[in-house]
Amino acid sequence: MNKLSMKKLRQFVNKLKYDSNGLIPVIAQDYKDGMVLMVAFMNRESLLMTLRTGFMCYYSRSRKKLWKKGETSGNVQQARQIMVDCDSDCLLFKIKQIGKAACHTGYRSCFYRKLNPVTSKFSIAGKRVFNPDTVYKK
Amino acid sequence: MNKLSMKKLRQFVNKLKYDSNGLIPVIAQDYKDGMVLMVAFMNRESLLMTLRTGFMCYYSRSRKKLWKKGETSGNVQQARQIMVDCDSDCLLFKIKQIGKAACHTGYRSCFYRKLNPVTSKFSIAGKRVFNPDTVYKK
Repeated sequence: MNKLSMKKLRQFVNKLKYDSNGLIPVIAQDYKDGMVLMVAFMNRESLLMTLRTGFMCYYSRSRKKLWKKGETSGNVQQARQIMVDCDSDCLLFKIKQIGKAACHTGYRSCFYRKLNPVTSKFSIAGKRVFNPDTVYKK
Repeated sequence: MNKLSMKKLRQFVNKLKYDSNGLIPVIAQDYKDGMVLMVAFMNRESLLMTLRTGFMCYYSRSRKKLWKKGETSGNVQQARQIMVDCDSDCLLFKIKQIGKAACHTGYRSCFYRKLNPVTSKFSIAGKRVFNPDTVYKK
């Protein structure tokens, strides 16, 4: 993604619709194989930082602050393409995931559990690619 | 998806985390090629209806009521697989889209616009597969 002038970036950011908390949901999808890796939220500031730097920066609702994805683990995400939905209230980023995994649990995707239709319980549908205890140094 | 007993379905529905409005965001992704078709919200009742019937049923925030996807257009969505994220606050449904398009604008995906990095404007990244004026009989 090329760097854009701040003025044009702000114009884009202001075209979108944010909820009452100033947030917009964002899907991060692998740019190559289309796997949905995670869903998080951005506010205007984190979206602007994402556009400026080319790396995904979200807004953490629990920590109430900007959250540059991978700042602790090193598993940053390069933004490759930005898609906007028909209502302009949701974003889909095609990204390149560095470090193999997007999820803090060590799975490639945050969506690593599927509903088992017989037991109505979750079952694991992915493989751990890193050990979170090592990566996050608890 | 097999029909499950109501008790087990309710157990599953109650395992998830809903926001302060009782809603959970849901991604509908094509079960074959992985295209993200739309993002919408479900409440407990619409999720239960989706699980019971096997067809996607959302909650419309603007109309404040259950919204069986395709009830007007006929473009219903068959639920094929349900994935849950690490925080249990977002769902990813692999679906089969009937009628070729998920979006009310006539595009296959609601994410039919991409950001043009030179002009900072949207450009169309999909093809219309139906005419909304005909389908919705305005």
